[in-house]
Amino acid sequence: MGQFGPYLEANAQNELVIDGVRVAELVERHGTPLFVLSENTIRYNYRRIHGAFSRAYPNEIIVCVGMKGNWGLAARRVIVDEGGGGDAFGLGELTVAMMAGSEPRRIVVNGTNKSEEVIAAAIDLGVLNQVDDADELELVQRVACELGRKARVSLRIRLPLAAIADVQYVDNRYPTGISPSFWERTFKFGMDPATFTAAAQRALELDHIALEGAMYHGGIPRRAGFFREETEELVDCIAVTRHKTGWVPAYLNIGGGFVPERHGADDPPSIDEYAGTISRAIVERYAVHGLPVPILLMEPGRYCWDSAGLWVVRVGARKVDRVLAGKTWIYVDGNTNEMGDPFDPRCGVHHVLIANDLSRSGSEVVDVCGQTCNAADILARGRSLPQIRVGDMLAFMDMGAYNESFANQSNAIPRSATVMVANGRAALVRRRETIADVLSRELVPTWLMARQTGPTAATPTAR
Amino acid sequence: MGQFGPYLEANAQNELVIDGVRVAELVERHGTPLFVLSENTIRYNYRRIHGAFSRAYPNEIIVCVGMKGNWGLAARRVIVDEGGGGDAFGLGELTVAMMAGSEPRRIVVNGTNKSEEVIAAAIDLGVLNQVDDADELELVQRVACELGRKARVSLRIRLPLAAIADVQYVDNRYPTGISPSFWERTFKFGMDPATFTAAAQRALELDHIALEGAMYHGGIPRRAGFFREETEELVDCIAVTRHKTGWVPAYLNIGGGFVPERHGADDPPSIDEYAGTISRAIVERYAVHGLPVPILLMEPGRYCWDSAGLWVVRVGARKVDRVLAGKTWIYVDGNTNEMGDPFDPRCGVHHVLIANDLSRSGSEVVDVCGQTCNAADILARGRSLPQIRVGDMLAFMDMGAYNESFANQSNAIPRSATVMVANGRAALVRRRETIADVLSRELVPTWLMARQTGPTAATPTAR
Repeated sequence: MGQFGPYLEANAQNELVIDGVRVAELVERHGTPLFVLSENTIRYNYRRIHGAFSRAYPNEIIVCVGMKGNWGLAARRVIVDEGGGGDAFGLGELTVAMMAGSEPRRIVVNGTNKSEEVIAAAIDLGVLNQVDDADELELVQRVACELGRKARVSLRIRLPLAAIADVQYVDNRYPTGISPSFWERTFKFGMDPATFTAAAQRALELDHIALEGAMYHGGIPRRAGFFREETEELVDCIAVTRHKTGWVPAYLNIGGGFVPERHGADDPPSIDEYAGTISRAIVERYAVHGLPVPILLMEPGRYCWDSAGLWVVRVGARKVDRVLAGKTWIYVDGNTNEMGDPFDPRCGVHHVLIANDLSRSGSEVVDVCGQTCNAADILARGRSLPQIRVGDMLAFMDMGAYNESFANQSNAIPRSATVMVANGRAALVRRRETIADVLSRELVPTWLMARQTGPTAATPTAR
Repeated sequence: MGQFGPYLEANAQNELVIDGVRVAELVERHGTPLFVLSENTIRYNYRRIHGAFSRAYPNEIIVCVGMKGNWGLAARRVIVDEGGGGDAFGLGELTVAMMAGSEPRRIVVNGTNKSEEVIAAAIDLGVLNQVDDADELELVQRVACELGRKARVSLRIRLPLAAIADVQYVDNRYPTGISPSFWERTFKFGMDPATFTAAAQRALELDHIALEGAMYHGGIPRRAGFFREETEELVDCIAVTRHKTGWVPAYLNIGGGFVPERHGADDPPSIDEYAGTISRAIVERYAVHGLPVPILLMEPGRYCWDSAGLWVVRVGARKVDRVLAGKTWIYVDGNTNEMGDPFDPRCGVHHVLIANDLSRSGSEVVDVCGQTCNAADILARGRSLPQIRVGDMLAFMDMGAYNESFANQSNAIPRSATVMVANGRAALVRRRETIADVLSRELVPTWLMARQTGPTAATPTAR
């Protein structure tokens, strides 16, 4: 099982074991569908990032693991325990970060159109507010003034990406390519370079702003070469701003977008390649401008979460149609409500294991389908798998990023439970949703409560 | 405001009024983002369907309004009050249907791989279970036997759609066309015609099954001509089955897929055209086979819900970049977490009104953006709108179908409240979600609770 990372193995009975715990035992106790998070895999992935950049970069690094990929409290507790930081969007994610015990210095708050509430919270906590536009700067100043505090601020930039204007980015989502240069310089985040410089100048004048950082995050999971180009442009913008304002950021934030390995998928750069390429670009470009290298912040999410989670579903039925569709369908008790990762460069294609029998032989091409009304509720399409039987437990691999955070309740279907496993122990970290949960916000207007079932006088007559 | 239906108007101050209530007043009381459902528009849409089919069809009709498009309790209460039925997927939707007071005879339960629990509930309630495959039939027999009851059953068919094998379906989702014939005869639902006939034969032998119906639902919103072709094939299959088994279904269920009108969008068939085409196809084809026309069931969802709901968001910021992006962004407090209708033939393009000033002049091309981390968090893209100001309330029209049912909590952002309005009154029907709600299922393993923040001994050393 080595290809899935060091915390996944088969036992003597050919059952899947994750972080020392039999998946079948987890299912017995917690039912299906069930997300399983491996604490040691989270740590392992975090340490790979932290280690690679620590080796490659000559100043302090802070890995602000993206909360958007997994905003679970237990997952966050592991990151905090590792000494990691977080990238929070809005008050919900910031709440999780702080409930998990994050060190404020390691938390950044991102977002466009931030509420006064989240700005005030960032000031209260002393976390770094990554300001998205010039107007927000004035709002931060006002809120900080009202609180009698100084706000720690970083400015988010949008880059021309001139050097890669002709490059087409290609992955499974964009098989004919998209222009990241066009896309990223026209998206909703950040300030163009001239505005960035003017905002820095303005921030230096505002007495409740402590201007500490500069940030750029390209919006797509991408190859190392892209990071080099954008990092060079970013440093050049900082040099221009320094020339005009005298200010250099203490913190440089390069965002995230490192593509993790996935079994059976395309071959992404290693984390060492990302770390080496990015560190070299920063060091060399800062040297060109004669500036000291800053503290490096980064916001990887998927890289940390993807392989740390699997999702177990139970096979409830099979249907074979050799006549009309020429298909075999395998029906399970999970569904695409919980496979909604919109950023996945592999388009949600996850390797499937029969958790209760890894040695199962035979091969059959099947569609694995869920229970929703949606004809596209296909968890694995046209996949060649060993002969699957009713009652089997299927484990979908590399499900730790984005799938839970984007889960919905269509068809009023309750969502999975999540367990965390480590060193042979297991604990429920997200309790299974119930129908009562799904319906907990529902009300009926008083004027409709007492009516009788059946057409009213005003209903058009049928027939 | 007539183009949006009879329950939307402007008052003398050019404010948007829905079902007799000022949108601004709703926002004052309930905040934004806010879904608003017009009770009278739901009734109006239901009556249009019911009326058109009642006029066109010579036997009883039951309109089982799809719950998947909107599983809200209050919305369902209105349908029940109209004498309408429902199409429920799973125990959650069935629960809502019955809590709202539905007449069991008007409820059908759909789904693949149904749990024993939902089958038992359908038997308890006496609702029609639309059986998806031959194995399910045996399961229903067993559960009904255990309960000492007879299960009402309809059989779901998958059709060859031979007559339209060469037709490409084109809409905004499929601009180059897809083959509905290929797609629908290979999707996960139902039985091929030979299996359908065999299942009918088997059902007639099972003493706890009352075989009452046949059902076909094509999976896409589609034009009237498609309904004619598929209905003719469906009736032919029923005739073959009757020839072999002697059985004719008392209920014929044609599913849904009627495309509603939408302001500024393409021009779909009228409901009268759907009703006329489908009714003629059934009547003529039943006559060819010398059979009496059945009771007609149908499952329209979008047609009923789409125009009955709007969504109000508040503008919090503007950003203009004439230099790099050449764009104006309008930032609002709603986001694409609540615009996730995957079946919309208009790809989520909704007309936008300035609810607090319908007479606003000027024109500007903007991207209206939400607050999530997602660069694709664009609620209206490149749209020409009157000059929008911070503080404006934007109403997204035709938001009543699927957007709430598919809403997610990415970035741990709480979801909107929903109010129902009717005849100048308003009532909260889905309370606003809180961060406490979003985090209500979170736990931390005991072994992680007491650790101190910071790297453990085992963490690789940084630098």
